[in-house]
Amino acid sequence: MLIDGADGNYRNDNLLLGFSDLRRLRSERPLVFAKGRGIFVVDENGKDYIEAVSSFYCAALGFSDEELADAAMRQLRALPMYPSAIHRTTAPVMELSERLAAIAPVRNARVHFAVTGSEANDHLVKFMWYGNGFAGEPRRRKIISRKASYHGSTIATAALGGGRDLHDSFALPMQDYLVIGHPGWPDAAEPGEDETAFTDRLAAELDRVIQEAGPETVGGLIAEPVSVSSGMYPPPAGYFEKITTVLRRYGIRLFVDEVVTGFGRSGEMWASQAMGLEPDCVTCAKGISGAYMPIAALLLGEEFAGRLDRGSDAKGWFAHGATHAAHTVSAAVALKVLDIFDERDVLGHVRRIIPHWNAALDGLLDHPLVTGNRKFGLMGALKVADPREAPDGNAAASLQVGGIAKAIYEAGLEAGIIVRPLAGCLVMAPPLIITEAEIGELARRLRLALDRTLAALPAA
Amino acid sequence: MLIDGADGNYRNDNLLLGFSDLRRLRSERPLVFAKGRGIFVVDENGKDYIEAVSSFYCAALGFSDEELADAAMRQLRALPMYPSAIHRTTAPVMELSERLAAIAPVRNARVHFAVTGSEANDHLVKFMWYGNGFAGEPRRRKIISRKASYHGSTIATAALGGGRDLHDSFALPMQDYLVIGHPGWPDAAEPGEDETAFTDRLAAELDRVIQEAGPETVGGLIAEPVSVSSGMYPPPAGYFEKITTVLRRYGIRLFVDEVVTGFGRSGEMWASQAMGLEPDCVTCAKGISGAYMPIAALLLGEEFAGRLDRGSDAKGWFAHGATHAAHTVSAAVALKVLDIFDERDVLGHVRRIIPHWNAALDGLLDHPLVTGNRKFGLMGALKVADPREAPDGNAAASLQVGGIAKAIYEAGLEAGIIVRPLAGCLVMAPPLIITEAEIGELARRLRLALDRTLAALPAA
Repeated sequence: MLIDGADGNYRNDNLLLGFSDLRRLRSERPLVFAKGRGIFVVDENGKDYIEAVSSFYCAALGFSDEELADAAMRQLRALPMYPSAIHRTTAPVMELSERLAAIAPVRNARVHFAVTGSEANDHLVKFMWYGNGFAGEPRRRKIISRKASYHGSTIATAALGGGRDLHDSFALPMQDYLVIGHPGWPDAAEPGEDETAFTDRLAAELDRVIQEAGPETVGGLIAEPVSVSSGMYPPPAGYFEKITTVLRRYGIRLFVDEVVTGFGRSGEMWASQAMGLEPDCVTCAKGISGAYMPIAALLLGEEFAGRLDRGSDAKGWFAHGATHAAHTVSAAVALKVLDIFDERDVLGHVRRIIPHWNAALDGLLDHPLVTGNRKFGLMGALKVADPREAPDGNAAASLQVGGIAKAIYEAGLEAGIIVRPLAGCLVMAPPLIITEAEIGELARRLRLALDRTLAALPAA
Repeated sequence: MLIDGADGNYRNDNLLLGFSDLRRLRSERPLVFAKGRGIFVVDENGKDYIEAVSSFYCAALGFSDEELADAAMRQLRALPMYPSAIHRTTAPVMELSERLAAIAPVRNARVHFAVTGSEANDHLVKFMWYGNGFAGEPRRRKIISRKASYHGSTIATAALGGGRDLHDSFALPMQDYLVIGHPGWPDAAEPGEDETAFTDRLAAELDRVIQEAGPETVGGLIAEPVSVSSGMYPPPAGYFEKITTVLRRYGIRLFVDEVVTGFGRSGEMWASQAMGLEPDCVTCAKGISGAYMPIAALLLGEEFAGRLDRGSDAKGWFAHGATHAAHTVSAAVALKVLDIFDERDVLGHVRRIIPHWNAALDGLLDHPLVTGNRKFGLMGALKVADPREAPDGNAAASLQVGGIAKAIYEAGLEAGIIVRPLAGCLVMAPPLIITEAEIGELARRLRLALDRTLAALPAA
């Protein structure tokens, strides 16, 4: 029985969905969601699911916030869109720019809007090339990223992230891209290596990569504060401090990708604040609008943005823009998100709820399929393993398909919970509005999925 | 006096707007729009402007369509977003996929959604690399584009388009990119060359470029049906037929970028239909949602998409996706656009209004600043020149700043009309809903801008 607004009659063999098995998609109807209610989404048959990943880490304020919907509606009635470009804009965009600059984890930030997190990171690299060219450093075009990270789906940003497999599958360009190891403590450590030795080694590797490439050819390093796609590894102690020291030595910029971690996920507005980072530039998206509308922003440091001014001065304008960057309705919704953070004390709530979240993740450690967990802010990963198999210490292959994590994901759908199976673990990042009771229900459903998966395993 | 909803107090020195003079932006408040009304936008002071370019060719149904706003609102209330990926989606996305496949100018189309036109073109190249790799043609990665075209703002798509200046400013990658001449008839013709000789020469150039690159290394050619950024040149007679013949000879695909021309601009749903093109794949955006919400689509031909299936089969999944691709609210709005096209006979209206549009453009030919025009569907360009200067036959430098076109643009703002100054002409593409009377008012305001610009010219 389909609920209101759902229609079971559409074909599904035309639709090429991302991150899916395309052949399965042509024969098997995807899971179709029809409604949202707080941290829950409801499928076309009326069954509810806890979205324990905030649907790609983005629906931070849940799926039925009336104030966000109303903000969108008011703007739709007034002016549904006007591009912000050619010295023309709209009031919500000006206000949002000012308010983001005021809270940015970058001093005297200048704000440029994009539409998606992918575009924000793509543009950041493009702007670096542009600015360095006009600042007399045209050779500084190489950008360093970390293995098993994710910075977007465009050609340039996919080349920044992913593993070797993604590069090979899509034949992505490797020119200008340098890759260093990911700080997956302790799984990526060598035998006998303690946390200090591990981070020393990573910093030394960075130094070596820069030296080999030629320091004068390297423009920046881009990093997520927490490597989500590698299985949600918080950085080991001292990691970013040591990395930053190396970068500063060579005049190489630190770009922090806060697309997932920005807007409260850490308990601070930015993970950069929670970790004491000093980025030259920051990108953000997802939580900026609670994902109700597509919008992303680049928060550019003064010196970086000044280089763009020099280009504009030389050419008479800055020859980059886009139709839907700073979409008017998206900006209006993002303003309302900032209001809600203040009015409802969202950060205070997140800080109060984190201990309950951590307790829930720890409470699952007794399960035979769970071999550990990782926690950061209101995020977490449960490491899972098939007890019949030898443990696999290397979870760095972020794009692993199948395995026990996939089986638990499928059992989770049955049990009414959506998690993200990645790199031998279950990654979670529930909406920031989750309550203590809802965390309990999340843990209950997840344990049910674990139990059912365990019960279904053939005997070893 | 500011109208409701406007606030004059925001700073504007933080906001880094696209396609703007960044220094001017830091000292001079941009033009801020607050309301929309049909083909008009209204600034914060209550002054109205005819948006003769549909704001970047996209607000095809005007700026105050109640039905589009209502469609967005209904979806916002039901489910404001859920990503379409990982074998999960929403009903509006499934319906939209089916309806787009049914009207696509590509046989048995498969549909993949993106967020922006830039992303759609970027993904198309990425998918080509992926598919060709799994189909045993990994060397077929080069893509051909035409000079002075525009395919987007990401690194990969900016590299596809633009002129040499854009490549140099942003230091864009040139590996894998081949560029051929643009079919700017008659301005790009050589002395004495007729239309047949001109298109023969362009086809011969394409053949030579492919031969020099190695035909087995070339994957596709991407083209806008009408080169908007070069100054809105409709293709000369026989051009696409000859180009396509060359491509077919080498098994190279034709990708048609209908981001601007799709959804009725030509009087047909697609310019590909109006011109009899047979694309392998088509990209679209802008008009797909009347720009009320960001959404774009790739319409992929059967053979092309089949190569993606092979990759998915080999890897177990298709490792590409994005949070806001097929945004739920955007899909709901795009469905309403398709309804409106049927219910209000938008294509019929466009066909009926085109003769009036053409007459209005021709009616301005008597003005001393106007040296010619170009027309295609409900688009057009007025060629303008300072009568004190020798005429410049080469308008191919699409990113020209300043000059008489810029002066007329500024006078147009005074007169209450927004045009796009590009490559020595004024490009226009009004909302498809424009009436005969409104075309008259548009021409009146444009003549006023031309008169004022002429009057302000110092004597030669």
